[in-house]
Amino acid sequence: MSDKAHKKDKFVGVFPELVEELLDVLKGYGIREEAIEWYRDSLNYNTPGGKLNRGISVVDTYVILKGFKSIDDLSVEEYKKIAILGWCIELLQAYFLVADDMMDKSITRRGQPCWYRKEGVAEIAINDAFMLEAAIYVLLKKHFKKESYYVDLLELFHDVTFQTELGQLLDLITAPEDHVDLSKFSLEKHSFIVIFKTAYYSFYLPVALAMYAAGINDEKDLKQASDVLIPLGEYFQIQDDYLDCFGKPEDIGKIGTDIQDNKCSWVINTALKLVNPEQRKILDENYGLKNSEAELRVKNLFNELGIDKIYLDYEEKIANELREKISQIDESRGFKGSVLTEFLNKVYKRSK
Amino acid sequence: MSDKAHKKDKFVGVFPELVEELLDVLKGYGIREEAIEWYRDSLNYNTPGGKLNRGISVVDTYVILKGFKSIDDLSVEEYKKIAILGWCIELLQAYFLVADDMMDKSITRRGQPCWYRKEGVAEIAINDAFMLEAAIYVLLKKHFKKESYYVDLLELFHDVTFQTELGQLLDLITAPEDHVDLSKFSLEKHSFIVIFKTAYYSFYLPVALAMYAAGINDEKDLKQASDVLIPLGEYFQIQDDYLDCFGKPEDIGKIGTDIQDNKCSWVINTALKLVNPEQRKILDENYGLKNSEAELRVKNLFNELGIDKIYLDYEEKIANELREKISQIDESRGFKGSVLTEFLNKVYKRSK
Repeated sequence: MSDKAHKKDKFVGVFPELVEELLDVLKGYGIREEAIEWYRDSLNYNTPGGKLNRGISVVDTYVILKGFKSIDDLSVEEYKKIAILGWCIELLQAYFLVADDMMDKSITRRGQPCWYRKEGVAEIAINDAFMLEAAIYVLLKKHFKKESYYVDLLELFHDVTFQTELGQLLDLITAPEDHVDLSKFSLEKHSFIVIFKTAYYSFYLPVALAMYAAGINDEKDLKQASDVLIPLGEYFQIQDDYLDCFGKPEDIGKIGTDIQDNKCSWVINTALKLVNPEQRKILDENYGLKNSEAELRVKNLFNELGIDKIYLDYEEKIANELREKISQIDESRGFKGSVLTEFLNKVYKRSK
Repeated sequence: MSDKAHKKDKFVGVFPELVEELLDVLKGYGIREEAIEWYRDSLNYNTPGGKLNRGISVVDTYVILKGFKSIDDLSVEEYKKIAILGWCIELLQAYFLVADDMMDKSITRRGQPCWYRKEGVAEIAINDAFMLEAAIYVLLKKHFKKESYYVDLLELFHDVTFQTELGQLLDLITAPEDHVDLSKFSLEKHSFIVIFKTAYYSFYLPVALAMYAAGINDEKDLKQASDVLIPLGEYFQIQDDYLDCFGKPEDIGKIGTDIQDNKCSWVINTALKLVNPEQRKILDENYGLKNSEAELRVKNLFNELGIDKIYLDYEEKIANELREKISQIDESRGFKGSVLTEFLNKVYKRSK
């Protein structure tokens, strides 16, 4: 088994225990079996099933910070405890995705029907999303209440949740799927949306959680982490936008839909900065339309504008800047730049 | 101005400052004006506008516990601080109601269109509900972080939120509006639903918040409060169910719709325990139908069964039990039975 598969396997192995712990709370309340089974289904359907990168990176970061060589050097208890923080991010993600799919009227998620589209679920999915979020605080209370950093964990989840919701709000009002208005788009807005909607919870949160658990909690160190991870998260999303349009479907495992979906993507925002009035007209008339001819016209224009080259230049520039920043990390209080290098290496030149 | 109107006025007067404080957080993030205005609209549309009983009762309870004579004896700072805890309950309520209205496909709320039905809102309301909840933790962090009971407040909100969502889940799967199956109903389920969906956040939460703020935080005292407030909350909801069916529209300010809406109400559950097979058939064939002839057949049967009398007997019995419990409250650690009497008096023999 590859190292990566082993990491994922071990992480996934913790989840069934957490489900039972959550259901034990319901059983303790004396709630009826049908509600327990409903919650079990929702937890299992919505939480695992993705790549679990965010959750696993909490464990990875903790291992580096504590100076372990591998996840297998942790005791069973220590592994489970740090994995729980990873699963709390995955629950946060599940909460967002169940709701996002309803707001975007999506059809499938992770190769299966979206939860709200399952027989008998529909609008109940809103309450199910709430209960996925609530699970975070049940688990934190049970496993971390006695830790000196318990309040830090609660506040971190509160803050990052709010930041993500704010990013989602700006995205929703800037790029509603059914109303195209490119004058609302800008690279500045795009930057704000992706930092708030993605970078905080996907990049900063895993590292900050591992830092608290490893006892590295100086404000200066959290800032060092954030100063690299937030631009790295922005880079990751810009790359994601780029791959949606320019990636090979066989690499990225899906056919990009950002153009037809009127997404406020880095690609369209970059194009908008470069177009002459004639080209702008093409974008206004074709972007966000649900047909492949219009999509092709937009794609051709993107190629004409050389967005590909602009992306590759951006990628080199940001990667160099981040490497430079990482090389200057002050490790005197126990934080380690290698944590950040790990993240950067996972993103740089990624094709899927 | 009546004492009641004065209390409400003073409480409402705090809210605009809280909105500005919340928007200041967004401004600090540098988010664009349109998102700030959106959040302002959502906060103002969804949070005040109701009776505000829950929020105001936090202040009232605090005044009693601290031995003040009136809310005007509190300094401006002390009043604002306790009122913030009241507004946090109103934000929790706003979060639930925005979502409930979507799940129930409701049309109006507090005499205006439901938020999700406003022009341009629709599914964005899901994210708006999330952001109403998030506001609670922004306010608690800002105003209570330095208090010894800060973690108690956070956990109390987490616990009560989860309990309410659990009650909502059981309600949704027991009584879907579009599928009538009376065999799923029972008085036991009804009791669980109303305790979890209503009693915790509407009755226990206001008192527990005021207790923490007044420094009365012994587990025994919280249990004394809960032992009265949870059955009182159940009684309140049973009364609400009763009034929906038997109350005068001119008293309750609305025309009851529980029968047509297939609600798992105390009235239908009590009837189900009393019916003979022939009467049961009438209920199976008419309950939950969207027409007034069917509704009338159900109502006539309720009258035939004497539900009215059963309710009045229940009300006397539960009120006496609660008075008896309150008379035995141990006030040695500073808790006061009069807090509970205030709540009971507001519920007993209420007609609106």
